[in-house]
Amino acid sequence: MIIVIKPHTSRAQIDEVIAEVQKLGYDPRPIFGTELTVIAAIGDETTHHRLESLNAMPQVEKVMAVQKRFKLVSRESHPGNSIIDVDGVKIGGGNFVLMAGPCSVESEEQLLSTAHAVKAAGATILRGGAFKPRTSPYEFQGLGSEGLRLLSLAKKETGLKIITEVLSERHVEEVCTHADILQIGARNAQNFQLLIECAKSGKPILLKRGLSQKIDEWLLGAEYILAHGNANVMFCERGIRTFETYTRNTLDLAAVAAVKKESHLPVIVDPSQGCGRADLVRAMCKGAVAMGADGLLIEVHPHPAEALSDGQQQVDFADFASLVKELQPFLQAVRQTV
Amino acid sequence: MIIVIKPHTSRAQIDEVIAEVQKLGYDPRPIFGTELTVIAAIGDETTHHRLESLNAMPQVEKVMAVQKRFKLVSRESHPGNSIIDVDGVKIGGGNFVLMAGPCSVESEEQLLSTAHAVKAAGATILRGGAFKPRTSPYEFQGLGSEGLRLLSLAKKETGLKIITEVLSERHVEEVCTHADILQIGARNAQNFQLLIECAKSGKPILLKRGLSQKIDEWLLGAEYILAHGNANVMFCERGIRTFETYTRNTLDLAAVAAVKKESHLPVIVDPSQGCGRADLVRAMCKGAVAMGADGLLIEVHPHPAEALSDGQQQVDFADFASLVKELQPFLQAVRQTV
Amino acid sequence: MIIVIKPHTSRAQIDEVIAEVQKLGYDPRPIFGTELTVIAAIGDETTHHRLESLNAMPQVEKVMAVQKRFKLVSRESHPGNSIIDVDGVKIGGGNFVLMAGPCSVESEEQLLSTAHAVKAAGATILRGGAFKPRTSPYEFQGLGSEGLRLLSLAKKETGLKIITEVLSERHVEEVCTHADILQIGARNAQNFQLLIECAKSGKPILLKRGLSQKIDEWLLGAEYILAHGNANVMFCERGIRTFETYTRNTLDLAAVAAVKKESHLPVIVDPSQGCGRADLVRAMCKGAVAMGADGLLIEVHPHPAEALSDGQQQVDFADFASLVKELQPFLQAVRQTV
Amino acid sequence: MIIVIKPHTSRAQIDEVIAEVQKLGYDPRPIFGTELTVIAAIGDETTHHRLESLNAMPQVEKVMAVQKRFKLVSRESHPGNSIIDVDGVKIGGGNFVLMAGPCSVESEEQLLSTAHAVKAAGATILRGGAFKPRTSPYEFQGLGSEGLRLLSLAKKETGLKIITEVLSERHVEEVCTHADILQIGARNAQNFQLLIECAKSGKPILLKRGLSQKIDEWLLGAEYILAHGNANVMFCERGIRTFETYTRNTLDLAAVAAVKKESHLPVIVDPSQGCGRADLVRAMCKGAVAMGADGLLIEVHPHPAEALSDGQQQVDFADFASLVKELQPFLQAVRQTV
Repeated sequence: MIIVIKPHTSRAQIDEVIAEVQKLGYDPRPIFGTELTVIAAIGDETTHHRLESLNAMPQVEKVMAVQKRFKLVSRESHPGNSIIDVDGVKIGGGNFVLMAGPCSVESEEQLLSTAHAVKAAGATILRGGAFKPRTSPYEFQGLGSEGLRLLSLAKKETGLKIITEVLSERHVEEVCTHADILQIGARNAQNFQLLIECAKSGKPILLKRGLSQKIDEWLLGAEYILAHGNANVMFCERGIRTFETYTRNTLDLAAVAAVKKESHLPVIVDPSQGCGRADLVRAMCKGAVAMGADGLLIEVHPHPAEALSDGQQQVDFADFASLVKELQPFLQAVRQTV
Repeated sequence: MIIVIKPHTSRAQIDEVIAEVQKLGYDPRPIFGTELTVIAAIGDETTHHRLESLNAMPQVEKVMAVQKRFKLVSRESHPGNSIIDVDGVKIGGGNFVLMAGPCSVESEEQLLSTAHAVKAAGATILRGGAFKPRTSPYEFQGLGSEGLRLLSLAKKETGLKIITEVLSERHVEEVCTHADILQIGARNAQNFQLLIECAKSGKPILLKRGLSQKIDEWLLGAEYILAHGNANVMFCERGIRTFETYTRNTLDLAAVAAVKKESHLPVIVDPSQGCGRADLVRAMCKGAVAMGADGLLIEVHPHPAEALSDGQQQVDFADFASLVKELQPFLQAVRQTV
Repeated sequence: MIIVIKPHTSRAQIDEVIAEVQKLGYDPRPIFGTELTVIAAIGDETTHHRLESLNAMPQVEKVMAVQKRFKLVSRESHPGNSIIDVDGVKIGGGNFVLMAGPCSVESEEQLLSTAHAVKAAGATILRGGAFKPRTSPYEFQGLGSEGLRLLSLAKKETGLKIITEVLSERHVEEVCTHADILQIGARNAQNFQLLIECAKSGKPILLKRGLSQKIDEWLLGAEYILAHGNANVMFCERGIRTFETYTRNTLDLAAVAAVKKESHLPVIVDPSQGCGRADLVRAMCKGAVAMGADGLLIEVHPHPAEALSDGQQQVDFADFASLVKELQPFLQAVRQTV
Repeated sequence: MIIVIKPHTSRAQIDEVIAEVQKLGYDPRPIFGTELTVIAAIGDETTHHRLESLNAMPQVEKVMAVQKRFKLVSRESHPGNSIIDVDGVKIGGGNFVLMAGPCSVESEEQLLSTAHAVKAAGATILRGGAFKPRTSPYEFQGLGSEGLRLLSLAKKETGLKIITEVLSERHVEEVCTHADILQIGARNAQNFQLLIECAKSGKPILLKRGLSQKIDEWLLGAEYILAHGNANVMFCERGIRTFETYTRNTLDLAAVAAVKKESHLPVIVDPSQGCGRADLVRAMCKGAVAMGADGLLIEVHPHPAEALSDGQQQVDFADFASLVKELQPFLQAVRQTV
């Protein structure tokens, strides 16, 4: 930590800060500059008391952290690319994956027809929400356990692996009996109790970025999971909330490159939530692939205009098939340049 | 709902949209303007399928909601100001309340000394975190059950009511045996399972605004609680996340006036989280009072520089006492102008 | 500046950075910690080459500035509160000012009736836009020179001082012959050529905050004006752009306290632009006064529903008069607590 | 426009709004729904008084625009892709362009060496700032006229076309004698006087997106230029300001697809400003190409660590050459899928 002292502070007041730094377990090294004094506090910031509290002293101008706060998710702890093995389907380290399916599971017919369609187009993992976090209590909340049962049925019929969202610590066990990947949604990105409970299940986890979560905080969210013994984590960029309203969210594709630089874990992109409009999904997929994403999570529905949730961002079967075909030259371009 | 049709759309394609509107249970009323055609879809948007999914039709330019989505929290359902009775301490409808105490419960001595100090200065409700949601798994996570026990002890010693945060559905029952108000934090503002579980307890609930939650969404969060049978809800504005970094968050004081305009429920302001710096807390308190807040939630610590969490935004005992004194003329000004 | 070196960097690579720091005119002081090496670069950051460019070296993790970049606007250069004297009307240092008038000057009748009304209610400065920066080229662009003439007429009739916006370097001279205060709008907050040209006129300047301008950058905008010889600067907080859409902008009232802490110059608040809705203006005024604002800039129109620009945020004469009356207890509360 | 009336409004009050709509030149069509009344106001919103001012009436809940505000830049006015011809170098409609060069022109040697390097790697347009808009008055402000002279020299030596930023209406004429494209920077994106002055020159214009400019507002900025007779406009996405601090800005690649959907004009991407870190530039370039950008604007410097401005985001000659090579498969993929 670097503690910056206000100008015109007396030596006695500087010594107060130095004493406090020592008391909190760090080795203080003052540097007296031409304009300012700073104190470098030597010690491991992740295990000690963090020194931001020193801002409470009137002579302190600011406290700046120098060390990264995440460890297990970092490239330093694991220089290569982690590959997540979802019951035979590999993700990361050059293995690109297509996850697709409806926003919500609505009925057997809707789910099975979609499962067959996305499989035919090249997807290997089926998505579908059984428990839905909806902004209003009056909106469709998902089929719940019946939705999970339908996902298992679709898996049996098609062989696709299943990813579905978990909303509650109490659902983890039940969801685990049906799903191959647990999805933690943007609204629960810092619901740490849920993260810990999912971690304990040992299942692969897809961790969506919170609506206004900084990259550093997102990495620390995953750090909770790894620190609780589960290293099968994938990040999922799904757009952040900004002032722009043309798109539902602002898909932060730089985050794909940033997270892959900082971490060894795979990064998936969700263009459907990311832009919230079906007419931009295709372009966003190409951008995500070119940026180096390890996979895509795409919402597909047999008849989007009648979907019970988020129809405006779901593509239909024909669109999905043609989109997958159009992605091929970009996937090939990535392979040529790695 | 208003559905705007793209320019140069044929009558047949317009009829397709009209048919779809009917199919989804609304009464369509097309209006043919000079430049554009719009279709007004008559029906109750909160109980029907919402029509945003029509955006998936290529001839639809956009779909605009005209109706508000919240009902039970709205002024229309309850024109007067709701007063929340916390075991004798009234909040709202002209009853101003001071909630104060440490960010985290750290020890018996820390909590009891703070409880006595804030009571002496005029607070009637003691805050203190027992379960702490921390960005990093390596930061202090709170004393948990032991923290709850200390809160009960402080209540017994001082008569102050207790507010503390609930992080998990599984903790609700235990927290209810110690707390008079359940606090739902910003990170869980859309953890709907937690909201529902807290609702069922019947306890008064303080619902913090999410980091990037729109006012409309925040009202809908409270709507979940009321729809599950608990009308003892207070909103708490605690700052939103913006590009500004001088303050930790941007305290949106307009939200106080906005929520009081839309809803009958009380609004509390948390200036400590709101600006994240002790040196601005006093000014923010005055602003909040002047804007019409029904109460303040202020972090107070015996020695902020050594606090185990968020020391930089906690004020000490002397500061708190002088702050409360300085608020009096503003509280009086509010009473004069209501 | 503090340069943080990446972990596991060799001594030779650290020495490369040290050499570069020296080459750029700073005195390097390396500190070898347990986990990381940092180099403190001693020297005045405001006059030297700034060292952010060192981020281009692969062994550099990050570069952190320790010094504030503004000087002339800072409290350190001028510990007391500056008072701006607008031809006899004092602003700052305990002198509170009401600036009011229409968004745009529309006609002689509109302007004169408004001038008389706001004067009667207590305003001493008349606002009114002659040159209007409008998002669309098809919107009303202001009356231009004719608008300036009407402002002079209103001044002559009422004795009110005049504030009006300057959009172009080429207009500065003409505007100066009619206005007592030059307003620089949010869209031009970093139009530095305009800032410099206005500075040279010697006139008092009201500098609005840019739509997404950090406080530090806003202070540096004013620093341009002071560095070009004009110390008659007032800041004007008018809301920042965030994700929230209930209000047009998010009025950042913490910025009032923050700027007054960092700078000796007065801070005015514009609640009309700040929330963009007439129904919240009154509450925002109270909040601004309580936070310590040195004045308010309020849009007033004889018939807001027919205003040629921003009618939705303008109050009518009766509203304005009652608003000013309701502010009195808050102004008194401020005087009691200073 | 659609005017939504508040619930429980009397017929007389509704008629007031209807009368006002008529007075303002629109044809009102009331629709009485089950819960709400809305009034569709028929008329061309771009040429009439806009009706947002009706929000000032207490019985009005909200006013919603249905029509797009831009005309000349829209696909409807020009369905094909516009191609901008910069003295023989074509941009748009399948013609991809590389613009590269230093952030600031610093010296003859720096500029000429960079010009030769970027030309050798495949660039056809040389960028370089002569007038620099800097946040602080104490930072390097560019070489001004001498910088322009050096750009002309570089053009003569290499045949590269020149793009450089214009900061002031007063510089337009001088800049035009040296530059082939006028760049309008993010800070001047809504400096409408500058936009108009540049429009009049007839030169091709690259219009950067403002730091917090919505896509709709950006299109309207360009509409100013087209409405003043100059259709040679290119958009340049350069990142928007958000809460994220890992990158300097958040490059909004969805905006590339969005603007190309709404407008016939080319879209260029500036990854250097967009992420503000040299280590992410390469990935951002690939993403931009895949999204369909018509060109890239990349900062290149002989020795970034010693650059006088923004060294942290500039790549060196070797990096640039290898980056351009790596882009080829992505450019080919785009050609395959168009």
